[in-house]
Order: sequence, then C-alpha cells, then structure tokens
Amino acid sequence: MSPIDLFPRQSKLNVFLPFYYTLWADMVLTPTEFQVMQSLIFELDWLSNTDRELLIENLNPEKAPSPKTLKQWKKSVEGLDLDSKESLTDIALTLANKNTPEFSFSDSSIQSFRSAENALGIVGREARYIFREGHKTQTAKHQAESNFDIHIMTEFLNGEQSELIRKVKTIISDPTFSLREYESLAEQREQVLSWCKELARQGFGSWAYPEFAGGKNDMAGYFTIMETLSYHDLSMVIKFGVQFGLWGMSIYFLGTEKHHQKYLKDIGSLQLPGCFAMTETGHGSNVRGLETTATYNQENKTFTIHTPHPAARKEYIGNAALHGEMATVFAKLIIEGEDYGVNAFVVPIRNKNGSLIDGVKIEDCGRKMGLNGVDNGVIYFDQLVIPKDNMLDRFSSVNENGEFESPISSDNKRFFTMLGTLVGGRIGIPRSALSASKTGLTIAIRYGDKRKQFGPPGGDEVPVLNYRMHQRRLIPPLASTYALHFALQYLTVRYLNHSEKDAQEIEALAAGLKAYTTWFTTKTLQICREACGGKGYLSENRIDDLKNDTDVYTTFEGDNVVLMQLVAKNRLTEFRQEFSDMNMFTVANYLANQAKVSITEKNPIITRSTDESHLLDFNFHLSAFRYRERAILSSAARRIKRHIDDGMDSFDAFNVVQHHLVNVGQAYIERVILESFQEGIQKISNAGCKAVLSQLCQLFALYTLENNRGWYLEQGYMEGVKTKAIRKMVNQLCWDVRKDALALTDAFDIPESCIKAPIAQRNQ
Amino acid sequence: MSPIDLFPRQSKLNVFLPFYYTLWADMVLTPTEFQVMQSLIFELDWLSNTDRELLIENLNPEKAPSPKTLKQWKKSVEGLDLDSKESLTDIALTLANKNTPEFSFSDSSIQSFRSAENALGIVGREARYIFREGHKTQTAKHQAESNFDIHIMTEFLNGEQSELIRKVKTIISDPTFSLREYESLAEQREQVLSWCKELARQGFGSWAYPEFAGGKNDMAGYFTIMETLSYHDLSMVIKFGVQFGLWGMSIYFLGTEKHHQKYLKDIGSLQLPGCFAMTETGHGSNVRGLETTATYNQENKTFTIHTPHPAARKEYIGNAALHGEMATVFAKLIIEGEDYGVNAFVVPIRNKNGSLIDGVKIEDCGRKMGLNGVDNGVIYFDQLVIPKDNMLDRFSSVNENGEFESPISSDNKRFFTMLGTLVGGRIGIPRSALSASKTGLTIAIRYGDKRKQFGPPGGDEVPVLNYRMHQRRLIPPLASTYALHFALQYLTVRYLNHSEKDAQEIEALAAGLKAYTTWFTTKTLQICREACGGKGYLSENRIDDLKNDTDVYTTFEGDNVVLMQLVAKNRLTEFRQEFSDMNMFTVANYLANQAKVSITEKNPIITRSTDESHLLDFNFHLSAFRYRERAILSSAARRIKRHIDDGMDSFDAFNVVQHHLVNVGQAYIERVILESFQEGIQKISNAGCKAVLSQLCQLFALYTLENNRGWYLEQGYMEGVKTKAIRKMVNQLCWDVRKDALALTDAFDIPESCIKAPIAQRNQ
Repeated sequence: MSPIDLFPRQSKLNVFLPFYYTLWADMVLTPTEFQVMQSLIFELDWLSNTDRELLIENLNPEKAPSPKTLKQWKKSVEGLDLDSKESLTDIALTLANKNTPEFSFSDSSIQSFRSAENALGIVGREARYIFREGHKTQTAKHQAESNFDIHIMTEFLNGEQSELIRKVKTIISDPTFSLREYESLAEQREQVLSWCKELARQGFGSWAYPEFAGGKNDMAGYFTIMETLSYHDLSMVIKFGVQFGLWGMSIYFLGTEKHHQKYLKDIGSLQLPGCFAMTETGHGSNVRGLETTATYNQENKTFTIHTPHPAARKEYIGNAALHGEMATVFAKLIIEGEDYGVNAFVVPIRNKNGSLIDGVKIEDCGRKMGLNGVDNGVIYFDQLVIPKDNMLDRFSSVNENGEFESPISSDNKRFFTMLGTLVGGRIGIPRSALSASKTGLTIAIRYGDKRKQFGPPGGDEVPVLNYRMHQRRLIPPLASTYALHFALQYLTVRYLNHSEKDAQEIEALAAGLKAYTTWFTTKTLQICREACGGKGYLSENRIDDLKNDTDVYTTFEGDNVVLMQLVAKNRLTEFRQEFSDMNMFTVANYLANQAKVSITEKNPIITRSTDESHLLDFNFHLSAFRYRERAILSSAARRIKRHIDDGMDSFDAFNVVQHHLVNVGQAYIERVILESFQEGIQKISNAGCKAVLSQLCQLFALYTLENNRGWYLEQGYMEGVKTKAIRKMVNQLCWDVRKDALALTDAFDIPESCIKAPIAQRNQ
Repeated sequence: MSPIDLFPRQSKLNVFLPFYYTLWADMVLTPTEFQVMQSLIFELDWLSNTDRELLIENLNPEKAPSPKTLKQWKKSVEGLDLDSKESLTDIALTLANKNTPEFSFSDSSIQSFRSAENALGIVGREARYIFREGHKTQTAKHQAESNFDIHIMTEFLNGEQSELIRKVKTIISDPTFSLREYESLAEQREQVLSWCKELARQGFGSWAYPEFAGGKNDMAGYFTIMETLSYHDLSMVIKFGVQFGLWGMSIYFLGTEKHHQKYLKDIGSLQLPGCFAMTETGHGSNVRGLETTATYNQENKTFTIHTPHPAARKEYIGNAALHGEMATVFAKLIIEGEDYGVNAFVVPIRNKNGSLIDGVKIEDCGRKMGLNGVDNGVIYFDQLVIPKDNMLDRFSSVNENGEFESPISSDNKRFFTMLGTLVGGRIGIPRSALSASKTGLTIAIRYGDKRKQFGPPGGDEVPVLNYRMHQRRLIPPLASTYALHFALQYLTVRYLNHSEKDAQEIEALAAGLKAYTTWFTTKTLQICREACGGKGYLSENRIDDLKNDTDVYTTFEGDNVVLMQLVAKNRLTEFRQEFSDMNMFTVANYLANQAKVSITEKNPIITRSTDESHLLDFNFHLSAFRYRERAILSSAARRIKRHIDDGMDSFDAFNVVQHHLVNVGQAYIERVILESFQEGIQKISNAGCKAVLSQLCQLFALYTLENNRGWYLEQGYMEGVKTKAIRKMVNQLCWDVRKDALALTDAFDIPESCIKAPIAQRNQ
C-alpha cells in the first residue's frame, strides 16, 4: 500500500501523518502506543468508520509502512514552516491546514490530539526536530575560551625557575631528543644513555653538586630539571635520577670530603656511571632488615662485601644490568662478630671495559611494564674485598683500632638518619609524576575538545568534552594537578630550608606527597587513556608510555601504602604522651574537644548551609579539611590506645587500624595541598589568572569533600542537603572550567615535540 | 666512658639500665623524655647527689653512649628470665634484684619508675621484646587454611561446562602454547595466528556454528571457550574473537542461507580470515553516523563501496593489517540518491596471496598499549564494486526492481536490530576480562601469602597478606570476582534463552555487565600490580600483559560510559509514561511511594541497627541494593522531567544528569550481581563451599554498601553508627576470608603454565 492511500493529500486524515511517522520511525510500536492511538481514533467524532478501520489497520505491526513510504511521509512534513511549532499536534494541524484548509478542527479534537501526544510520551518540545535540521542546544554551544593570559600563568607557575625551565625545554625539544619507537631493549637503553650523556654535557647532571665538582650547588634547580625533563621520555628521567640523584647524592650526603673529591666530578659528567644498591629481593620496604654483609678485616683494613643467600641479592638496581661501574651498597657492618646495622659502602662492579669485577655476579631484570630504557639488574656479591676508605663515613666509621665509631648510638636511628638525608628522591619523583599527568591531561583535553560524537536529533554532533561525564572525568584531575603543583613547590621550599628539628616533619610531608601524587598520576593517566577511547590505546598517542612508565612510581622510593603509614605514625607522635597516660580523664578531654568542635563547626546552619557563597568560601573549605585531619587523627589514636588497654599486642593494634592510618595520612596531605594552593593564589596579582586559579581551588576542595562525603555525613559535620549541594556545585564548576580547560593545559607550556600525540596536534 | 662506669654490676644504679637503653635505642631523645627522667631521678630519695649528677649527665645528647656500650647494656639484660615481665619497670627491678639482691626498692620508688615508664610512652606491654626474641603476635600467626573442598568448588563453578573447560585447558597447557616474549611485532602476530589455527583445528572456531559448517551449534560452549582461553594470551583470545565471533557471527546473524553456505565453514576453519569493519575514525561510539557508502547500481546489480573522506576510514579493525581476506563492512546504503541507513556487506580486501584488492588501501595501526598479537588496521575503500549477493540481507535487501525492502520501516530501528543480534560480543568480553582478574588475583594472593615484610620488635617478619591494608586491597576484589562469575553465568543463560520481548532488557544487562566487569578488571589488575611491588612491574610476572591487554576492554564493544547511559535510558523507559503526564499528582505519587519506603525500610531500628546477624543478612543486603536501584532511578526521572518542564531542551536535560544516569546503571547492575550471587549459592549443597561462598557474598554486599555509604547516609537510609559498623564488618570479613584466599584462587583451577609468574610458583 502506498502512503498516498493512507494519507491522500486532500484528506482530513493528513493530520495523523506526523503521529504515524513518529510512531513508526520510533524504535518500537508498544502496546501502550497502540492503545493511545486507538482511543484517539475513536474519540474523534468527525472520522467515518472506514477512516477508523483504515487508521487502526495501519497500526498493525504486520502492516508497517515500507521504508520508502516512511521517507515520503517525512518529506511531506519537511515542506512546512515549523519554526514556531514545538508539539507534534501543532505540526499535525499545520499540515492539515495546508492540505485541507477548508476543514477546521474543534477545540475538543485538538485537545484529544494533545493528550494523545502526552500519553505517547514524546519527550520535550522538540517534535519539530524530528522533521527538520538546525537543532541548537546548550550542550553543543559550549566551547573553549580563554579568560586569562596564558603567558602570565606560565611565568607564575615557573616562578624563579623560568630561565632554567626554558633552557631544559630547549634541549629536549632538539631533534636529537625526538621521541621514537625502538626495535629492541638494547637499542632503547643505548638511546637513553646517550640522552643522559648529552644532559650531563649540558651541565645538568652536576647541577646540585658543589662547584669543585663542576656543579652549581643548586638543589632547587636539580628538582626543576627532573620535573621539566619529565615532559620527555621517563626512562631518561629515571636513568638521570639513578645516576645523578641516587648514586651521586649517596656519595654526596653519606660520604665525606675524600669521597666527594674522588667521585663527584666524574659522576656529574657521567664519566663514572653508578648504582644505588639498597633494595634486596628479600627486603624492599623493610630495608632495615637488609642481609648483605660488610665484614671488617682489621689485619688488612678492608671490608668483605658478601651476599649470604639468594634472597639477599640486590634487585631492581638501575644502571646495574649494563652501564654501572660502581655502586653504593648498603650492607650490615660486622666487626668481630658484632653487627653494627646497615651502613653504606662504595663498591666497584665493572671495569671500564665493561667486564664484571671478580666477586660480582649480575643478572638483567629484563623487560618491565615500563621504563625499559633503564637497565635494571640483580647483583650478587661473593666475598668481594674493598679498601677501608670505601666506607661512606659521614655518620659512622671504623677507627684505627678497628672499633666502630658513630655520634649516633642506636643502629636503627643511625640508619634512618642516613635515609633521611636521601629524602630528596621523594621530592623528585612526585614532581616527575605530576609532569606526566600534565602531559596526559593536555593530550586528553585537546582531543576531547576536538572529538565530536552524538548530538541532538536534527542537530550537529557535540564535542565530547561538552558532555558532563567527560568533564567529570577530566576537569577535577586538572584542578588537582594545579593544586599539587603548588603543594610540591611548598614541599620543595620546606625541604631546602629545613633544620634539624623539622627534619621528621619534612620526611612525613615528602612521603605523603610522594604517595598521594603518584597514586593521583596513575589514576589520572588511566582516565586519560579511557577518555581518548581507541586512540588512547595506540602507542603513537603517548598515553601508553606515560601510563606504563609512571606505574612503578607508586612502588619505588617507598611503597605508597607503607609511606602513608609512616606519615600517620609521624602524626601520631603528638599523641605519644596521651598514649602513656590516656586514662578516662584524657579520653574525656578528647570528647570534650570534639564536642567543642561540634559547637563551633557543627552548628545546624553550617551543616545544612547550601548557599553558594558559603560553598565556594575558601575558609569553609580549609576548616572542613582541618576538622577531618584532626578528627581522624585523634580517633585513630583513641582506637589504638583502646586496643592496647584491652591487652592487645601493640603490633596487632596498629595492624587492626591500618586502614584508618592510611586515611590519617590522606587527610593530612589533602589539608596541606589545599592550604598551599590557597596560599599560592594569594601571590598572583593578575586578575584573570587569580580568578581561574580560585575556581580550580574551589573545584579541588569541593571534589575532595565530595569524595569524603561519607565520612562527613557519618560525623554529622554535614547533612545530606549540603553534600548534595556540593555535588551539584562540582558539576557546575566542571562545566564552567571546561571553557578554560584548553588554555589551562596550554599554560603548562609543554614542548609540542613532547606532546607528540597525533590526536593532540593543533593543526588537525 | 665505658658502660661499667655508669652502671657498675654491684651498683643500685643498675635499675636505670633498661630505661637508658630504651631511651638511647629509641629513635630520638626528646625534651619530654629528658624531663621525665630528670624528675624521676630527683624523686628517688635513695640516690646520692653524685649518683644524680652522673645519671643526668648521661642523658646529655652530647654524651650519648657509644654503639658498643649500647649493645653491652642490652646484653646485660638479655641474660634475665623475662617471660613473666611485661613492663620496663619489672625488667629494671629484675635486673637490680639479680645484681644487688641486698637492696630492696620501696613501693613509692617502684611507683615512681612505673609512672616514669608511662610518661615516656612505652606503648604496650611488650617492653621485654626490646631485650629478647620470640615475639608472637596475632598478625604473625594468621595463615592460609582451606575450610572447603577445592575440587567440589571448581566443579560447581564450571557446572555443565566442566568437560569443555577441561578440554580447552588441556590444549592451552600444551608446550606449543607456552607463553613467551617476542623480539618483534611481526613475530608475535605470527605466533598468535598459528595458535588460532591450532584452536580452529581443534574445532573451537566453529563451535557456535551450525553442523553443516562443521560446528556444534553451541553458543554456550563458544562463551566458555572464550572465557577459558582467557587464562592464556589475550591477544590470542581477541584474534579468536575477531575471526570466529565478530567476522563469523556477522555472517551468521546478519546474512542468510546463501552466505552461511558460502562462508561459515571456511571461517570456522580459519581458511578464510576476515574482519568486522564497523568503527570509523570519525564514528566510534556513535556508529549510527557511519559515513562509508554502499551505492546500488541497478544496471549491473552491484554495490560500490566507498570512503567519502579520511574521517570515514575504518579504524582499529582486527585482522585488517595482515591476515584478513574479507570484511563485513557497515555502510550507508544509497539507492537513487536515497539514504537507507547503515547496512552490512561482505567485501573482499585481500587475495589469497596476501596482495590487496584494487580499491582497498590498508594502514597498520602499529604498536598498541597491549594486544600486540592482533594486527589492527585502517581500511580505505576507493569505489570498490561488489556483487549484489554480498549484501547481508537478513534484515533488508534490494529487490529485482532495485527497490529497498525491509520488514523494519525505520532505518535506525533496523540498524539497532542488526546490532542487537551481535550483543554476544558484550558477553564474551566481560567473561574474558573476569578470567584475567582471576589470573591476576591468583598471582597477587599467592605472592602476598609467601612474601614477608616487617614484623614486631623481637619477632619474625609477617606475610604481607596478614596486613589489614593488603587484605583490604585484595580480598574484596576476590569476593567481587566470585560475584561476577555468577552474574555473568546468569547473563549468559538469559541471553541464550531470550525472546523477542526481553531482547532490550538483555541488551541493557549485557551492556551494563560489560562496563561493570571491564572497569572492575582494570581496577583489580592495577591493585594486583601494586600489591606485588617491584615484582609486579617485571614482565616475567605477567601482570604487565594482563593489565595492558585488558585495558582496552573498557573501550571496545562499546565505551563503558556510553554503555552505562544506554543501560540507564533502558531503565528509564518504564518512566516513559510518567514523563508525558508527570503532573503534580504523579510527582506527589512518587513522594508518597518514597515515603512508603521510608516507613517500611527507614524505620530507626533498621537505619541504626549494627547487630551482626542483621549486617550479615542476605535480605538486608538485597533490600538495600534494591532500594538504591529504585530511588536513584526515580530521582533521575524526576530531575529530567523537571528540567524539561522548565523549558530545557531534552538533549541538554539528559546531559545535565549524565553523571546521575551512570549511577542508575551502576545501581541496577550491582543489584543484578548480588541477586545472582545469592541465587547461585542456593544451588550448592556442599556445606563447606556454601559457607565460604556465603561469606564472599556478604563481603561483596557490605563492601559495595560501604562504597555507597555517602549515598545511603544522604538518603537517611542508614545512620553513621551503621555505616561505621559496616566498615568494621568489612575489615573482619577480609581478615576471615584471607585464610581461604589461597584455596579460593586454587578453585579457579588456572593451568600453572598460564599463571607462569615466578613469584606465584608453588615450589618457591
């Protein structure tokens, strides 16, 4: 049956055409839809019974119109002027009036059509877009703008280091540094080594070392170099860090003048490639338990370095598989059968010609998930003898009479003091990780801004970054990246100016920020990969390498879970006193303090307040973060104390609350991040930059509160109305920041040669 | 000064030795500690002033005892019998009584020592372990047991498929299938192809096809094969799925008899390698917008396949770069300038000799994050002419007069009906993903059970799986893995028996479980990597490949975020009616219903109940999940409706609530998972297995509730006391399940050759 038979141009039945088209064009003709149409047809008194039969008959799924008929029905509507029409009924009437102007519909008939339309559940007022193009939506309109001066932002982020950063970027943008794929492990390792040599030639290797070693004595600069290099190949960064950071700094910080004079210059120039041999197969996190031995022989004033059993072999040692000629080896010092704990020794492992020293056996760790440009190896020592001078003797030494000497009585305290001097690694790693996040977000946000998919009926496809879920995935990490930038700046400054007395605080701060930032990076790069879909999976778009190379950051320089507990234990020391005499009175005190908090911070107005100015208020954010930090810490202390009082072994007690302790570390670090972000913003005068940074800071704060809303609700610090309002505000901020997102990644000023990904190319 | 000077054997001062040792062995001598000791020293009336001076003087950090002295102090205590001693004071008195038995301490002196000890904050009662070994703790004692019959569990999990599973495992355990590293992309792709040929030779390729094509007409078996092969190399699984699933099934489900007869046999035997060419660079998720054209030419009864512009090229097409000879190409059918939407065509792309067909251009996608054994390619068509018979004409065709014919009027409905027949892919993928999770968890849990790190002072090191955080990371995913096993079984059965009318529900179910499971797998393998530390980063331990190969699962067969919205929209159709006439009355109805819920489910006793039997009750779990599912769905519906009533474009309205919609999908899927797990457990009679499965089910339920506690608290469905009790119960269940964890992974019965990881070897 041809459509003309059902809807002859001159027939009143024309009015049904838009309805029939919509029904059949729709995915499926449901029984409900059938009933609705049936009753409509019987309501209309001006239909003859033959009309009715015909109309009903053509609702029968068996008699669906042919695809061609469907298209013709559509065409007969497309001719009409629908601009003012929004409902299907309006369109139906317009069509009828055009084809059968002589016939006019009674109000009651019109009403019948309208209620039928409702009952059919035609969502919204865009029926006309079923028949014509040009559907405009807010979602489609939204687009990239820049409401601030990108250059000023970049200079502000770089601060005093601008000059050095520019220099490093110039080098890694040089064609000799162009990123590429490799045929083999060997080829990749060679490339990375030669890049490191070039960086050494440029003087970057010795940057932190004293002048006599060719350095600039500039530790701040060293961190900046690590961070900036991290826009480039991360194998290169880690190889650089192993050589000039771990190997060089262990000589610098654990050794004394004689070692500095002898080694530093050659290390900084990469004449003397070396390793940092601490981790053993059997002891990674618990390095205090290292089992390699260094036995002192008074008769010939030497040490014998030995691996007592396979599990005591040094593992994952960077530079060991191929290039290292020497290593700082951590081993238990034994004098006359007495164990003086772990100390550090300079041990040769390879001759200049690359052959192994007698008494050294090395295995290649082989392929890894990432960082394959770094030659990690396993080292065994078999009674290797080294001269007495090779002991790195800043904190301990063996005197002429063969007696052990140290200003620090306790072996453990001494070892942890040594480790403390190496905390710099826990600053370099998170700063490197954050650069990788910046690159990943730049790629994903550029792609999300260009990539279009789906759209309203009759409208164009929409940039995926305009979809709320896409914003929810990429915009909060962008805010956190800015937040962490300021937090890591703060950490660096604290570290560079730290004194004896705040040493432990700095260690906790570095441990916590290392864990927080590297977890953030792993999570963020996963999001970036998924946000780029199939394109994100292709190696050419870099997220592959960024993700796999940084994956181990959560493990090395300390396992993140272990580090977070270290942070928590450091925070708990302020409760040491209470532990000892936490009798009912003290507990009562706590509760009293908590109660005080309740009075000041838990008043109903605050806990329920959803008013915008309050939700965006920096002070509200900070006090909420501080409250959580304090409350979680003291409740952890109380729990441990309670278990111990109940007779539980303290080791068990700490294990029972381990999950709680990780939250203690988390809450502390998040407060530090927010505080340093807020303070950082005070320092910029440019209004545009200040405005967008403030927005990012609010987003970071509210997003973090949203993630912890379960806790705040449990505490009664917030009520449901407020946490819902926070969620809504997060969505709104994501929507608003999306406009500046592209410019905010441009402000990272990452060399295009490092971004490299075809999907992130501007010209595409 | 030698220790003897400070604590001569015969001197009463000996009583101070344990205190001095503890202070100096401790990490740092704080001012507080100094004050405490000072006042102790002045309290004790029996000390002479010289004694006092001597003691005070030796608290001076400048005069710390030498390392050797410290050790001697320790030795002088180690001799004592400390079994009954717990406090430092007890030890001090024992030492004093031994060396100066003639002197007895007054109660008040003893009290002074005790309070000093308290004030010093010596945590716990294990002072003696500072001086002697053998420190036993609950944490250390905890270990692997098996409280159920592993074999019975395995058989229960495998069910009717046991026989086939055993067969597949035998093949992949054969030496020709041993996993290895590859020198090059080419080598890896060759290996994977030859494995697939071997699988075809074994008859696995055609398993789902009709007998005449050499198959067993057994779709259930096909899924089992995909799932079991996934313990082995995942490139092989995906290559297998591309050839026999995507390529073969598209012929089977979209073609008709003539196509089945012509192609299926050769596809199943891998004589005819082919591709599934749907995705285009410009259209991945929004496949309805594909732009490749198939123009019909009536004069010679052919179609011309053409790529109108670069963005319309087919991308990521498996089998395209090297091996594919034909492809099912999805293209817009054009007849006399009329566009009949996307249809499917069989298109030759390569000759038997491997050379490309004229009119076909192919590029290699090159290296990917994973699945590098699959040769993905890009295909361009340049006016390639194919015979009329190559149209896969099950749902549409061109008749002799060159007219388009289809029982389905609407182009969109027709296309989605075609896609609907291919939903099987969304069942194979999550089942493959879950196998990868099982392998990852087996490796991480075996390692966590063996790997020891840290321990109490004077005690042995502890298996890391005994640490609460390690349990928190690995045990809930183990529970979810079991839960998902049952959910995917349920999905498979529903799919195999589905009828016309529940087709859409099955599609939503498959989409949701695909998204949920693949996200779960990505998250779980990340946890496994980190839980294995540096070892997890080495490729030899497999987590590298498992992680990178499955990473794209969250993208292909539909982007997870898009799929979850599809699920939500399907759930919303039940509100279609309400959308149309959701007047104040209907809204009132909602609220009334919600209110009813409140009365039945929100009564204070339930919202506050923390009693164990309630927290572990299956009915409590299920009703909480169902409540969330219903409430989130109806609130989403209300929000959309409200926005539309406020005049918002419906496309914008759906975008505004996108995040909410993903939660709708999530809540629905989580309810389905819990329900099918609970039902699955009813089916096993063996008491031991039932018990441990019930525990896993409780853990899955409570862990999920804990993750959603923010929402439950917001709703007032639970109060803080309850969510805290749930958290505590999750910790307890993790602790309890840990004992069975090893056995629970053994029950997966993964071939050792597939586990492969050295860290997971039993004999190590």
